[in-house]
Amino acid sequence: MKIYNTAYPYFPQEDIENILIDIRDVLEGKEMLTMGNSVQKFEENFKNYCDTKYAVAVNSCTSALEISMAALELTSEDEVIVPVQTFVATGSSVLKSGAKLVFCDVDDNFLLDFKSLKKVITKKTKAVIVVHFAGMISEDIFKIKQYLQDRSIALIEDSAHAHGAHINGIKAGSIGDFGCFSFYSTKIMTTGEGGMITTNNKKYYEKCASIRSRGIDINSKTELFINLGSNHRVTEIQAILGCYQLNRLTKFSSHRNKIANIYKTKLKEFINLGKIRLQNASQDNKHAYWRFIVFIEDGNRNKIKKILNSKGIKADAPYSPLLHEQPLFSNIEKDVYTNGKKLSEKHISLPIHMLISEDDAEFISNTLIECLND
Amino acid sequence: MKIYNTAYPYFPQEDIENILIDIRDVLEGKEMLTMGNSVQKFEENFKNYCDTKYAVAVNSCTSALEISMAALELTSEDEVIVPVQTFVATGSSVLKSGAKLVFCDVDDNFLLDFKSLKKVITKKTKAVIVVHFAGMISEDIFKIKQYLQDRSIALIEDSAHAHGAHINGIKAGSIGDFGCFSFYSTKIMTTGEGGMITTNNKKYYEKCASIRSRGIDINSKTELFINLGSNHRVTEIQAILGCYQLNRLTKFSSHRNKIANIYKTKLKEFINLGKIRLQNASQDNKHAYWRFIVFIEDGNRNKIKKILNSKGIKADAPYSPLLHEQPLFSNIEKDVYTNGKKLSEKHISLPIHMLISEDDAEFISNTLIECLND
Repeated sequence: MKIYNTAYPYFPQEDIENILIDIRDVLEGKEMLTMGNSVQKFEENFKNYCDTKYAVAVNSCTSALEISMAALELTSEDEVIVPVQTFVATGSSVLKSGAKLVFCDVDDNFLLDFKSLKKVITKKTKAVIVVHFAGMISEDIFKIKQYLQDRSIALIEDSAHAHGAHINGIKAGSIGDFGCFSFYSTKIMTTGEGGMITTNNKKYYEKCASIRSRGIDINSKTELFINLGSNHRVTEIQAILGCYQLNRLTKFSSHRNKIANIYKTKLKEFINLGKIRLQNASQDNKHAYWRFIVFIEDGNRNKIKKILNSKGIKADAPYSPLLHEQPLFSNIEKDVYTNGKKLSEKHISLPIHMLISEDDAEFISNTLIECLND
Repeated sequence: MKIYNTAYPYFPQEDIENILIDIRDVLEGKEMLTMGNSVQKFEENFKNYCDTKYAVAVNSCTSALEISMAALELTSEDEVIVPVQTFVATGSSVLKSGAKLVFCDVDDNFLLDFKSLKKVITKKTKAVIVVHFAGMISEDIFKIKQYLQDRSIALIEDSAHAHGAHINGIKAGSIGDFGCFSFYSTKIMTTGEGGMITTNNKKYYEKCASIRSRGIDINSKTELFINLGSNHRVTEIQAILGCYQLNRLTKFSSHRNKIANIYKTKLKEFINLGKIRLQNASQDNKHAYWRFIVFIEDGNRNKIKKILNSKGIKADAPYSPLLHEQPLFSNIEKDVYTNGKKLSEKHISLPIHMLISEDDAEFISNTLIECLND
């Protein structure tokens, strides 16, 4: 039986040959093993891609989030708001910062809900993390941005899923004060493990670059350490992978959107009937489709998931449990997050990546349709 | 002019060819990109090498230190003692743990001084980090271990310099509660960036493995997070490099000792005259020689360093400034560390690595002798 994985890393054969040549140079000592030309080039190319002034390559998106918050110099008096639909790192990075973690409900697209956000913001709020969940930027992002700016609250974009997403021509990672990307092996582009911080703020950039390298004074010629940092660096080999993957990002993004369009077209009837619902991005809101999320409005989600899995279609339902339900946060004050909870019982994610062909998408759609008709 | 670098990574040509084959498998999707077979094999081989029960591969020695202290669950009431001659990470990892950082003077070998240690230990001391500086284990290590054990104080071995060192047949990293290794590009063996935690304690192992992977419950089948962790993982490619480097470690160690013996033989006369002094390891104390440290007892250290540098010999004097003098620790309570201070004004480090040949060692010794005779 053919298996349709949830996610899959992809390196075109031509890139593999070139990557191996570059890695040989590193191993033979022609290039450095870490923090050399490739890391610099990767940062340069990535900031250009994102239309930001600065980029700092780090070892994970978790690190990117932690460093961004460290750059904000938060204290235990400060509060940081995060949506309940996200990976654990969005929340754990707030705990690491020493600030108070405040959960917030999501809207019908599984994205931070602007109305709920306004309710949980206090005078102590110092930062808000929006998560471009599954690759979609919130339709309210500019309203949220303005609202936060008016209150001097920092906006952090958790863009782990959103390489290539843009809204009104503005790229994910270039909207807020910080963009935090992941290059983990399941992501749209990968370096195995890896991440990137994007920012337009020079002060934040210098602080992030310092913290990434154990708090070094980046302007000193001797090894002086002025900030509390850690080693969040990436190797040259990871950066080499990153450069090649970034060159393919537009192609990767097109393919994912092509597969998404097949799903959308095939499932249209069921959407119109109200049996299922999709994340609803407007014309000018380009979805990155790290995941293709389907909300089962009329049907047994768990049964459908089971049937799909039995046919080799690795449909899952990220993230389960929701953030606030993770044991790590058991002692954190929380409210009831009605919409997040409701949606998390309805959604599945269909395979969408470079190894899913148009034929695969037809098969997957048809299999889902069978379930919906059942 | 030939340049004799301080440190240099080294991959034998045969290993490069094999490494590239293994990396091709990863890029072609035959192996995972991260946390797959190679990481497991690297951990397995490393714990076997170190004679410990467990090993956890991490992205740096900085992470290894941070995770070890996180596993000890320290609070702001607790104190951790570190020697003043070490890299910034030994100290910054204590600050990250939330505990109070306590500095301690070093002995004539630049290693944590047992007498001084006894003076700074209090009822609040929860851990002591010994640093096998330059690759040498303290002659007092077993006395220190017993002293700490009697007081239920954890012993952490910062073994960043000490791959292959052993004393009375007992390996660096297997003496204390935790061994923390570095595979940074300048180290005895390298993965570009990387580190390893070794331990014989199952509880510590499980905690470290969890914290390395964002605090995941390593015994749960679903993604449940129970500890405050981060992403400290390494890629498969780093682990592949690590496996090949580890296989060469005995050979690397022999070469470094061979070069050290040339230095010792050539410089013997000046040692006997009291003009210079070396780290003094007894017969059963195998030095790893990450660095070959020479204390200039009679001569102008800075002038000698300058002359050596002018002849392409990249002699340096790690770590400068000493730990407690780093700006990061300006607000930390400190005493006067007489011996550390005195020694730090005297020492230089001679190039010693796989690309330093016996002839190079002769040349370097002769050049130093010229300076000493000057």
